Amino acid sequence: MTPRVQEMLSWYGADNPGTLTNLARLLNHGRLGGTGKLVILPVDQGFEHGPARSFAANPPAYDPRYHFNLAIAGGCSAYAAPLGFLEAGARDEPGEIPLILKLNDADTLTDESDPNQALTACVDDALRLGCVAVGFTIYPGSTHQLEMFAQLRAISEEAKRKGLAVVVWSYPRGSGLSKAGETAIDVCGYAVQIAAQLGAHIIKVKLPTAHIEQAAAAKVYMAEAIPIETLPDRVRHVVQCAFAGRRIVIFSGGAANFDDAALLSEVRAIHAGGGFGSILGRNSFQRPQARALKMLGDVIDIYAHPAV
Amino acid sequence: MTPRVQEMLSWYGADNPGTLTNLARLLNHGRLGGTGKLVILPVDQGFEHGPARSFAANPPAYDPRYHFNLAIAGGCSAYAAPLGFLEAGARDEPGEIPLILKLNDADTLTDESDPNQALTACVDDALRLGCVAVGFTIYPGSTHQLEMFAQLRAISEEAKRKGLAVVVWSYPRGSGLSKAGETAIDVCGYAVQIAAQLGAHIIKVKLPTAHIEQAAAAKVYMAEAIPIETLPDRVRHVVQCAFAGRRIVIFSGGAANFDDAALLSEVRAIHAGGGFGSILGRNSFQRPQARALKMLGDVIDIYAHPAV
Amino acid sequence: MTPRVQEMLSWYGADNPGTLTNLARLLNHGRLGGTGKLVILPVDQGFEHGPARSFAANPPAYDPRYHFNLAIAGGCSAYAAPLGFLEAGARDEPGEIPLILKLNDADTLTDESDPNQALTACVDDALRLGCVAVGFTIYPGSTHQLEMFAQLRAISEEAKRKGLAVVVWSYPRGSGLSKAGETAIDVCGYAVQIAAQLGAHIIKVKLPTAHIEQAAAAKVYMAEAIPIETLPDRVRHVVQCAFAGRRIVIFSGGAANFDDAALLSEVRAIHAGGGFGSILGRNSFQRPQARALKMLGDVIDIYAHPAV
Amino acid sequence: MTPRVQEMLSWYGADNPGTLTNLARLLNHGRLGGTGKLVILPVDQGFEHGPARSFAANPPAYDPRYHFNLAIAGGCSAYAAPLGFLEAGARDEPGEIPLILKLNDADTLTDESDPNQALTACVDDALRLGCVAVGFTIYPGSTHQLEMFAQLRAISEEAKRKGLAVVVWSYPRGSGLSKAGETAIDVCGYAVQIAAQLGAHIIKVKLPTAHIEQAAAAKVYMAEAIPIETLPDRVRHVVQCAFAGRRIVIFSGGAANFDDAALLSEVRAIHAGGGFGSILGRNSFQRPQARALKMLGDVIDIYAHPAV
Amino acid sequence: MTPRVQEMLSWYGADNPGTLTNLARLLNHGRLGGTGKLVILPVDQGFEHGPARSFAANPPAYDPRYHFNLAIAGGCSAYAAPLGFLEAGARDEPGEIPLILKLNDADTLTDESDPNQALTACVDDALRLGCVAVGFTIYPGSTHQLEMFAQLRAISEEAKRKGLAVVVWSYPRGSGLSKAGETAIDVCGYAVQIAAQLGAHIIKVKLPTAHIEQAAAAKVYMAEAIPIETLPDRVRHVVQCAFAGRRIVIFSGGAANFDDAALLSEVRAIHAGGGFGSILGRNSFQRPQARALKMLGDVIDIYAHPAV
Repeated sequence: MTPRVQEMLSWYGADNPGTLTNLARLLNHGRLGGTGKLVILPVDQGFEHGPARSFAANPPAYDPRYHFNLAIAGGCSAYAAPLGFLEAGARDEPGEIPLILKLNDADTLTDESDPNQALTACVDDALRLGCVAVGFTIYPGSTHQLEMFAQLRAISEEAKRKGLAVVVWSYPRGSGLSKAGETAIDVCGYAVQIAAQLGAHIIKVKLPTAHIEQAAAAKVYMAEAIPIETLPDRVRHVVQCAFAGRRIVIFSGGAANFDDAALLSEVRAIHAGGGFGSILGRNSFQRPQARALKMLGDVIDIYAHPAV
Repeated sequence: MTPRVQEMLSWYGADNPGTLTNLARLLNHGRLGGTGKLVILPVDQGFEHGPARSFAANPPAYDPRYHFNLAIAGGCSAYAAPLGFLEAGARDEPGEIPLILKLNDADTLTDESDPNQALTACVDDALRLGCVAVGFTIYPGSTHQLEMFAQLRAISEEAKRKGLAVVVWSYPRGSGLSKAGETAIDVCGYAVQIAAQLGAHIIKVKLPTAHIEQAAAAKVYMAEAIPIETLPDRVRHVVQCAFAGRRIVIFSGGAANFDDAALLSEVRAIHAGGGFGSILGRNSFQRPQARALKMLGDVIDIYAHPAV
Repeated sequence: MTPRVQEMLSWYGADNPGTLTNLARLLNHGRLGGTGKLVILPVDQGFEHGPARSFAANPPAYDPRYHFNLAIAGGCSAYAAPLGFLEAGARDEPGEIPLILKLNDADTLTDESDPNQALTACVDDALRLGCVAVGFTIYPGSTHQLEMFAQLRAISEEAKRKGLAVVVWSYPRGSGLSKAGETAIDVCGYAVQIAAQLGAHIIKVKLPTAHIEQAAAAKVYMAEAIPIETLPDRVRHVVQCAFAGRRIVIFSGGAANFDDAALLSEVRAIHAGGGFGSILGRNSFQRPQARALKMLGDVIDIYAHPAV
Repeated sequence: MTPRVQEMLSWYGADNPGTLTNLARLLNHGRLGGTGKLVILPVDQGFEHGPARSFAANPPAYDPRYHFNLAIAGGCSAYAAPLGFLEAGARDEPGEIPLILKLNDADTLTDESDPNQALTACVDDALRLGCVAVGFTIYPGSTHQLEMFAQLRAISEEAKRKGLAVVVWSYPRGSGLSKAGETAIDVCGYAVQIAAQLGAHIIKVKLPTAHIEQAAAAKVYMAEAIPIETLPDRVRHVVQCAFAGRRIVIFSGGAANFDDAALLSEVRAIHAGGGFGSILGRNSFQRPQARALKMLGDVIDIYAHPAV
Repeated sequence: MTPRVQEMLSWYGADNPGTLTNLARLLNHGRLGGTGKLVILPVDQGFEHGPARSFAANPPAYDPRYHFNLAIAGGCSAYAAPLGFLEAGARDEPGEIPLILKLNDADTLTDESDPNQALTACVDDALRLGCVAVGFTIYPGSTHQLEMFAQLRAISEEAKRKGLAVVVWSYPRGSGLSKAGETAIDVCGYAVQIAAQLGAHIIKVKLPTAHIEQAAAAKVYMAEAIPIETLPDRVRHVVQCAFAGRRIVIFSGGAANFDDAALLSEVRAIHAGGGFGSILGRNSFQRPQARALKMLGDVIDIYAHPAV
């Protein structure tokens, strides 16, 4: 085990050896194994956006085995997906890629101003599928947030007791926030803090903008002159909001069909700001496999070298 | 066991031998046993539409034993019904026909724009009645969908743990959808994907039309030129949406008292598009037994031969 | 055991010997024991309408012991009541009359267009009180119906597991129905079907009128020329809706203080139509005991002889 | 044991020896021990009205030990209070006064037209504190009543199984009733009947007025000429509504700071009408202890002698 | 053990030795150990207000270890925080500072007139983290209060059974109260009474103003001439409302960045009025550590000497 991984595991002093073992598996896997950085392949878009919108651009991706292979071939740290996708491939090459089972999901067939998600799998499902972690989405700012936090609390307690790690997708959203507020720097930092206080080991957020949503927060950002002008600044602030960097925060890679150079530039900013890695869904599996592997390789290359 | 059944069972690598045994019983039963195709007799209309609307056209069908006999004589793969109907016949010829216990049902006495179903039986009921599977209806698009998904999740986890297969009726419906949207090709593909991601072994949907309901989906169908003009095209696309055909998708046979030739032509289209079979309720038990057996025979004949 | 009781028990092939034993106790008790007919004394009006409205006309009926004695002296098949009434008398003459514990009840102090009932006792209460069955009311047509069905499902599963029979009061009611619709022939048949599909052994409904509530049903009654003109016709149809007569359906005896001759004429119609008996509450305990015993005797006399 | 207590215990034939033992403790305690009459000290006003409104008039009453002592010194049958008050004194003189733990309470900080109460303690709390009974408030007439009844059902089943008695405060209240209706004679009788049917051993109600709230009831009170003119008449009727007097009904003693003579006159009326006793809260602990003991003594004196 | 601590433990006669042990640990720790006074460091602002608003003024405070160290170095009695913050430091110096795990929290991303909190940790989390107590917030006056009280009831029962103490943050808030009413003397006294009746060992409230919110209470404060003019008067009254001072009541130290002299003057008033201590969050961790230690030292000095 590298000193960096040892150091990072030391941040989780409340966890049992089972959970630490699974965190270590995740941190030691793939091309970034041992560096403390993570690139995760998430494929929940079939549920979240529908199959055609997710896979028609690259039809082999309709097949659940495709994503296991992509994550393995791409040198990813882990593969995260809903129940059905993991059930459909977990037996084929057991242990070849750390798995994260998403325990809740939503679709686009109803349109709620205060979104919520359905529980779609449970901790015991993650155990029987050989996963290293469970994943859970919360929507801070939705009127359903208290219920989601309580669900996460119960899942997190059970997962930790049973030796699994907990990955939280923290997406501010709902009638309490403006559209710009969903990626505002104060809200993003808040979202990371909430997930960390709820006991997440790893937190996934969107890249923040320089917008500040909450008036009470704006005063503080001004008064304390918190640097948020550049993307690395903002990544650094978000990481600080995660217990002064003692929780692992990873970032999503922008919209699909994004310009590749722009995406890699974002990754460089995440790395420069001290982010722990990227989660790349649509920008990997929605393109032909060769191009996806190239993209994953380029992203991993950035994280594999010390930040500039 | 035929190679095709062996292949199909291999798609369910996450299931225990108990569940695979029951899936195999279903795939090996009746005139289509071993072909990988299924024709299932479902009789939940007494609950869903009322007894007179369901059985008055063929009064012997008021008797629960009638449907067991029809499914056996007709060479069906399985018989699916609510609790009362299975309780009233399961002891008579145990094991003669694989049984699927519907665990939720609705009636037409209330009229909700966002429909829901009541839990009317449980997994242990299915075990004590000797069933091979449980059945569950979800309404993607209803405001009750998250609750229904969560119910299915719990039932599915318990059923798989106890060695049963899970059959999901996925019927898009609710205030989030137009009437035409309920059978739109994009929505139908989405409904199949949701059921598969929720862990269904077998998914039942309605035959889709060429209508596209969701604007964001329409762009993709256009951009990727997904073929949806003919019924076989659409069946093929829906099957693809079920994990590239690695989940069993069966289709319902249109409205009751449908023209027989038209119905058989639909079955030919399902077969041509790679569908796994039909579920025939009103078009079988609402006609005299001789005519019903003839119809079931004709449908089975189509599936028994290689698709053209 | 009479051949008729043996035949009727054969309809319940899914039940364990414990439940069949209790069904047999009910079918073999009282003056109608062995005939396959039932006359049950139900006294839940104290809860449902209030004590003065229920008992002031015959003050000895305020005393819970009165009803045990009335049911025994009247030669009834069983006595059905809420928790308090059974607790207050069950130890006095244990086993002298089969008991049915009502598990839910409502009162008239709130006035809801969509009625519901409170759970007021549980299956284990029925066991400790020596009951042969639990009773449960559902309101098909109420917006609370799905919740009530789910409650019945859970109670029914537990009761059957613990060797008790399940009696369902199926009363269509709620904003989904007109006042006339509550006793419409189509709705009444539907109510019986729902209760049977939910697993009821015995179903209690109101006598239906010739009114047809649902447009979709009206077409079928017309097209199939279902005979519903006379009361025996309608009883026969309702019994047919209960699994072609393979579930026990009993009927309530109209409004209180009804003309006795009219009431006995209704009973003759129930008998003629193949109904399995009557449930007589207000028309028995709201009159002096001598007159009540006379009425019960007359009703039982009708059922004791073959139907004309 | 006196013959009267033996007779009263015989009314509870469904209860186990544990519960009868605790009922006997209650009936045999204090100056009224053995008479079949009860005077209970209830102190939930700290929760229900706030501490200053409850205790400022007699500041020693802020101390939880005060009420234990008052109940003991006053010769009361029992002391009833919420969790905190019992926890704060139950160890001091264990067994010196039978305790009743209130399991639900409400406060005046929110103002709901349909009131409800919070669960504030559980049956196991009553066991660990050495109580003889649990207390529970229901609001018949509130839209929350079905939920409250169901809570009481579960609590009552557990309490009886664990050998405790059940005391129900039945207070009609809510949007289904006028203000006058809350103490109407028909509603009060109904409230007592509901509590008895729900399985209460002891029922506490307010003294009824001659007002009749429900039109359907008014007809019956008129037709049957039920005597309700005098307070003893009304008490007699309410007791009759409690299973013809086979459930213990006690009455609360009017508003606080009531004229003493008027209060004692009410007690005489309760006694004359066959009521089983009084529950005296504000009229005891809100005055100096000497005056409170005098008042309790006077009330007990009335009940200690045969009713006139 | 000092006589004062022995006396205070005697107030909790219903608790088991495990809970008394943990209460004793709390009362015997830090510079105030043995005096019966408490100064607690609470850090839930990261969750409740967001990380930047909480920690940017003193960036080392982003690190969860900072607060453990501050509480230890400051000589505090205990440190209270949500799950994440305790998980991130509890293993480092186990047992060096008594820990209180907050079990519910809210954020400012939604704005409800009737606030509520999410369950964010459970009693077993407190056990595995080595805590002496659980903390729970209630909002008397919110329409969610009944649900919160019921949650606290369940948590409190479990915590006491498992040997933990229960600390309740009782914050009147919601549509039932005006803004001034949240700190009104009558409401504050009521809030303390409710928490005590719900079984709290230690109660935290805000310092009350002389405002009286409830009309019915105002009459009593007037009639009984309850002294509420000075802050010590009001503290004395609030302590009296906590079972005549037999429950531990501590007070929060006003707004952040408060004038230090004013804050110390408030502490002197709390001490003079017989309050049991202070809970100091923002006024300690939002300033540089040296200044925070000075402030904590000054506050502790006040409580360490007999009140004037």
